[in-house]
Amino acid sequence: MKLTFSPASPFARKVRIAAIETGLIDRIEFVAATVAPGQPNDQYARDINPLKKLPALILDNGEVVVDSYVITEYLDELAGGGKLIPTSGPTRWKVKSDHSLLNGMLDSMLLCRYEKMVRPQGLQWQAWADDHWNRAWTGMARFENAPDVASRPLDIVQIALVCVLGYADFRFADCGWRKAYPKLDAFHQKMLERPSVKISAPPAA
Amino acid sequence: MKLTFSPASPFARKVRIAAIETGLIDRIEFVAATVAPGQPNDQYARDINPLKKLPALILDNGEVVVDSYVITEYLDELAGGGKLIPTSGPTRWKVKSDHSLLNGMLDSMLLCRYEKMVRPQGLQWQAWADDHWNRAWTGMARFENAPDVASRPLDIVQIALVCVLGYADFRFADCGWRKAYPKLDAFHQKMLERPSVKISAPPAA
Repeated sequence: MKLTFSPASPFARKVRIAAIETGLIDRIEFVAATVAPGQPNDQYARDINPLKKLPALILDNGEVVVDSYVITEYLDELAGGGKLIPTSGPTRWKVKSDHSLLNGMLDSMLLCRYEKMVRPQGLQWQAWADDHWNRAWTGMARFENAPDVASRPLDIVQIALVCVLGYADFRFADCGWRKAYPKLDAFHQKMLERPSVKISAPPAA
Repeated sequence: MKLTFSPASPFARKVRIAAIETGLIDRIEFVAATVAPGQPNDQYARDINPLKKLPALILDNGEVVVDSYVITEYLDELAGGGKLIPTSGPTRWKVKSDHSLLNGMLDSMLLCRYEKMVRPQGLQWQAWADDHWNRAWTGMARFENAPDVASRPLDIVQIALVCVLGYADFRFADCGWRKAYPKLDAFHQKMLERPSVKISAPPAA
């Protein structure tokens, strides 16, 4: 299998952590790719993903699996199932729903970054940036007040949460999430003890 | 159960079709909600979904399930499982991956609409709008060239595809998708024979 990724992508980081934690990392060839909003990236769109998003998993038969959630579920099943996403039981829908929330928070953080740092100067709409940052920030408050998330065995919610917090450090270094959310700070520090989390941390901004 | 929705939301439409097709429609109370980018919607963010997105499914125990994919999977399982999303077999990952692609196409179409019709005049970035429209358009070409999708029994991919095409009619009436993609036109017409698809069509723009 091949996985398209960039070191800066929090969605690719989620899959990289999942690949290590499920023991499948050695079966995946990592292919660095660059996609940027407002630029064509025609080859990537044609051959891999019309959405021009990272990551994509290219199976040995040539089929392409997207998005980061589906890839994680695929790897989880390949590793025996139920390791990162419960296949039954009462937490199942909570885990899936919490993961969707975290994924949407990442989407909003990327939109906020594009608005502030990629869009040409003079075309920024402050209310849009504020709105999307607020979605991520309000979402973090949900997890600050959900102590069960941090105390469970590793799952896709914890992985996605560490990707959200790492992306906040990477692209919004001054946002002050550690001060506002001390329990998330403790969770993040504990997660960094895992080699999968440490090795996949974004580069210096 | 309660479902937040708006008649204009293609994501809510997907769940409304799924609710009818799984026979669960009578167990769901539909709650109209309005969310708009760049506006606070604080109550919805606090009580239901920090992402301020539709739809959200509110279970009888108060738990909230997001997003439209997870809600559809939840309803599918509640109805016995495997009706709209295969629970095993070779098409399983193809269906999940194709659905993610279609969902991302909808995301891009909404971003394109916000750019052109919601963002204040003078702040538009044409390359961003073009990029996102191109993702949806290139994605449609994928499905134009995937005859197996239209010929399978109903699944979440067909439902999401009809939501993409209906949204194109609703918000991008002049885009010419029928001319460019005649097989999708035939698929769309056939899908409109289903009451679930017809009744959930967006209002006149």
